[in-house]
Amino acid sequence: MAVPLDPDLPTNWGRWGAGDELGTLNLITDDVREKAAAEVRTGRWASLAQPVTPNPMVMSPFAPTTVEVSPVQQIMAHTGVGVAADLMLVSNHHAKSTHLDALSHWSLEGEVYPGRPRDQAVTPGGVTHGSTTAFAAGIVTRGILLDLADDGPLPAGYAVTSHDFEQAEQRQGVHVESGDALVVRLGWTSTPIPGTSSPGISIDAVRWMHLRGIAIIASDRGDAYPPLDPGGPSPLHGVGLGRMAMPLIDAAELDDLAALCALLGRYSFMLTIAPPRVHGLTGVPVNPIALF
Amino acid sequence: MAVPLDPDLPTNWGRWGAGDELGTLNLITDDVREKAAAEVRTGRWASLAQPVTPNPMVMSPFAPTTVEVSPVQQIMAHTGVGVAADLMLVSNHHAKSTHLDALSHWSLEGEVYPGRPRDQAVTPGGVTHGSTTAFAAGIVTRGILLDLADDGPLPAGYAVTSHDFEQAEQRQGVHVESGDALVVRLGWTSTPIPGTSSPGISIDAVRWMHLRGIAIIASDRGDAYPPLDPGGPSPLHGVGLGRMAMPLIDAAELDDLAALCALLGRYSFMLTIAPPRVHGLTGVPVNPIALF
Amino acid sequence: MAVPLDPDLPTNWGRWGAGDELGTLNLITDDVREKAAAEVRTGRWASLAQPVTPNPMVMSPFAPTTVEVSPVQQIMAHTGVGVAADLMLVSNHHAKSTHLDALSHWSLEGEVYPGRPRDQAVTPGGVTHGSTTAFAAGIVTRGILLDLADDGPLPAGYAVTSHDFEQAEQRQGVHVESGDALVVRLGWTSTPIPGTSSPGISIDAVRWMHLRGIAIIASDRGDAYPPLDPGGPSPLHGVGLGRMAMPLIDAAELDDLAALCALLGRYSFMLTIAPPRVHGLTGVPVNPIALF
Amino acid sequence: MAVPLDPDLPTNWGRWGAGDELGTLNLITDDVREKAAAEVRTGRWASLAQPVTPNPMVMSPFAPTTVEVSPVQQIMAHTGVGVAADLMLVSNHHAKSTHLDALSHWSLEGEVYPGRPRDQAVTPGGVTHGSTTAFAAGIVTRGILLDLADDGPLPAGYAVTSHDFEQAEQRQGVHVESGDALVVRLGWTSTPIPGTSSPGISIDAVRWMHLRGIAIIASDRGDAYPPLDPGGPSPLHGVGLGRMAMPLIDAAELDDLAALCALLGRYSFMLTIAPPRVHGLTGVPVNPIALF
Repeated sequence: MAVPLDPDLPTNWGRWGAGDELGTLNLITDDVREKAAAEVRTGRWASLAQPVTPNPMVMSPFAPTTVEVSPVQQIMAHTGVGVAADLMLVSNHHAKSTHLDALSHWSLEGEVYPGRPRDQAVTPGGVTHGSTTAFAAGIVTRGILLDLADDGPLPAGYAVTSHDFEQAEQRQGVHVESGDALVVRLGWTSTPIPGTSSPGISIDAVRWMHLRGIAIIASDRGDAYPPLDPGGPSPLHGVGLGRMAMPLIDAAELDDLAALCALLGRYSFMLTIAPPRVHGLTGVPVNPIALF
Repeated sequence: MAVPLDPDLPTNWGRWGAGDELGTLNLITDDVREKAAAEVRTGRWASLAQPVTPNPMVMSPFAPTTVEVSPVQQIMAHTGVGVAADLMLVSNHHAKSTHLDALSHWSLEGEVYPGRPRDQAVTPGGVTHGSTTAFAAGIVTRGILLDLADDGPLPAGYAVTSHDFEQAEQRQGVHVESGDALVVRLGWTSTPIPGTSSPGISIDAVRWMHLRGIAIIASDRGDAYPPLDPGGPSPLHGVGLGRMAMPLIDAAELDDLAALCALLGRYSFMLTIAPPRVHGLTGVPVNPIALF
Repeated sequence: MAVPLDPDLPTNWGRWGAGDELGTLNLITDDVREKAAAEVRTGRWASLAQPVTPNPMVMSPFAPTTVEVSPVQQIMAHTGVGVAADLMLVSNHHAKSTHLDALSHWSLEGEVYPGRPRDQAVTPGGVTHGSTTAFAAGIVTRGILLDLADDGPLPAGYAVTSHDFEQAEQRQGVHVESGDALVVRLGWTSTPIPGTSSPGISIDAVRWMHLRGIAIIASDRGDAYPPLDPGGPSPLHGVGLGRMAMPLIDAAELDDLAALCALLGRYSFMLTIAPPRVHGLTGVPVNPIALF
Repeated sequence: MAVPLDPDLPTNWGRWGAGDELGTLNLITDDVREKAAAEVRTGRWASLAQPVTPNPMVMSPFAPTTVEVSPVQQIMAHTGVGVAADLMLVSNHHAKSTHLDALSHWSLEGEVYPGRPRDQAVTPGGVTHGSTTAFAAGIVTRGILLDLADDGPLPAGYAVTSHDFEQAEQRQGVHVESGDALVVRLGWTSTPIPGTSSPGISIDAVRWMHLRGIAIIASDRGDAYPPLDPGGPSPLHGVGLGRMAMPLIDAAELDDLAALCALLGRYSFMLTIAPPRVHGLTGVPVNPIALF
């Protein structure tokens, strides 16, 4: 790796070798999965994805002239028989779609984790290193919800720290461990609200994820808009995804999960993350399922 | 329902009311899910989806002039910053993509289950009844693999019957029950092979599913190409999906699952089915996960 | 042709043989083109297409959450070099896009002109008869503008008749002849205005086109919304395109042309119609050019 | 303009002001168009575009498993009525599609003609400077074919020079002048042939275009693959488009035009270039029409 990265920030470049494409998913051991399995006792479950209403691409003359922007454009197909079929054009990293960022989504000074020149990894013909191929068969691990919004949404501009996480652990009676999926609820939607500073994850909180050994993170609102520290790297995308090689689930919707956790009095579960099994993408929509 | 359907074939039209959109998913009760939960003991798992290599949409002048047909076209996006992002155009019912058929995918004499005029349910602007909305938050139930190809692929043109299912139950020590996901392996790929008659599920086998109360079915090769009975309805699509309102997972890849079942000596598991949470589609790619 | 068409309405089915795909474009003889050539004397010209602003498909987090519907979705591509390239997804028959309807766009009781079963002509894999292939190399003929809106837009709900055409001919000193492209300006936009009845072309006016031998027609507003006669066939699409096999240019924008005609005191010109040379479509965006 | 460009190569940066988006199209004066009009005498014409067969996006199970790559993907739409409609996904700069490059397609050391930072001109949301907007209403000028392949295709690897142009002028009895569209036929297809060096336009030939004042150029094969001079700028794209701001029509098909010119004994004509009137693109398919 030619680029000297800020030694004060956590990094996993080199930790699992020069050819690695899994990043912190390496932390999901058989032991972790066994622990995850032990969480599945009732068959109850919650989706962590927000519902998407697609926009139709063919309009009748009387269709509305403005539409809500959607991550998915739907095209109803002519099949020639009594069978209904369609296609969809999907914007893989849309702010209104719960999606999984592959490691190649981010780069640091021209390199993709763990030191591959970006131009070699990300090409017009697709991604050759650090793509969705790494987790196309799915991810299964233990998940922990830290619900920071159990008392209502966090205040605008609030910087979530490790202290918030540890308080939530205590409040909820859980302990986040190596290989876990961390699910953080701030109580904010994924879409920026013009004129408003959202809360967001701080660098301090990302350091804590590094120390604890988080395998993957999901949040309703992760990096703040506008940034908490406009001069620094974005905590989740720049440090978490870029340096720590920790895949991100962006734009999750966590209200159902929080309600189920509160109902069951339990904030740990098995999490299955199984996007469409498409190789070579920079990211992909996903519908993570928390199983209790 | 205006259309008198063949009284000799199983049907669920009317069974759960005139507004129902779940079909046989109604059979997944809390009891079934609890039984499914009891299957999760080790944290081991298998994906039932075949991997998809997308085709790039922008070619360099020296790109190949012919390509393998793919269900997904990938477009690498210009983001203007050091961030890699892409879009994908997805053919939702492609023979080379593991996907979930919604109830509106099929219709019987102009009506969609359970008697909605097809023109009202399936419109150029999307599907208003019987779409992917019904299971957009995911499906969780117990799954059973009946591996009919443990001795090698079934012969060309073979018609799978209830007798094959019951022999497999006996051989594997399992019993398929109401609310289960039935996973059937014939040992054939989803893509037709020109000049060859694939094996397929027979009407008799679908009747058996009805009697047993299958909630959802997945198979590597379901309806035969060419059809086993060219004059009759297609067993899985025409009777299973159309009449019984039993959602289908088409074009699954079951070799990994079969190997894991053989290794663990266990053919029952929890199955999570969580496609991208997009409403209003006729079908959607999915990556079903079998948890042991 | 199995279907007995209303003998009171004009038809060209059979006129140019059972395999014909040109329809009224057969009327453009060398003589007509020579007459068209004689119109080109100054090198001045006008476009008859409305400008389209595409919608971008990849949004930044701060992009607007609603957009004007557009016939074209633009995707900026990552090229990996200092070259900018893009793709566009085009809705070929959009009300906000000037486009050319191929003969297969319309069918009469299950048949496409001149009597081909619709299922054979229009397939999921494209159009095999009556597609854009027929005019993919372009159309060149004489054009005549009949400006019915020289005094302002026609009144709401107004039914344009042959009388209007003949008055305009007299007023403008022109005579529409066999093989001509007829360009009709009503002074209305192509997009329906909710709660308003647009004016439109009547059956009487279409009969007149048949008698005169119009090869192709362009208008800003052709068939009225809502229809002038809800119980009858739509004059331009049902009779003109469907029965007379006269290709339509929908949703033209004619203000520039009208201004240039008025300026030059001349309402006849050469018209070149050269859409992207794509075969097998039902319609295609086009930018017709009037040359003086 | 911050970038010092090689003073030995022709440039038009600054020639028409800092806000210009027309480039050499500025050379098309009323006089040129009048000269062009004088060429139109017979009504005969030829298309300069190659035909495109689109690929269908929805395949039946028995569709072929490999396809010829096409610049256009066609999707037949379900319209719900007896009307056939479709959409197309178009790769605007495809080697198998005759298309018009906008000025923003190329940049020189981070700037787009005539000195606009590329990041401001080319954005994820579209092109704000130097896009297809500049010629969306069409281009009309005089065209001259220089047929360098009247005796058969040029040899592999041949570098076309100004000498070839002047010999062709003499042979054909034409003189290329300021504001003309230059059409050059090398007798090669637009698609590279693996293992073969195509002929191409040399820097010397582009200098000659600059001296003569070419407004726009079309060729069957323009820049050679592999490059004639791998170390230098590509003549047509790097110097012609990038420095001289001369729009390019790539991948034209000129056999029909050459045959018509030979038949009529005339190599000058009016050329109308009227792509779909879509703003903000980097390039667009076009069907140029030569009128005699």
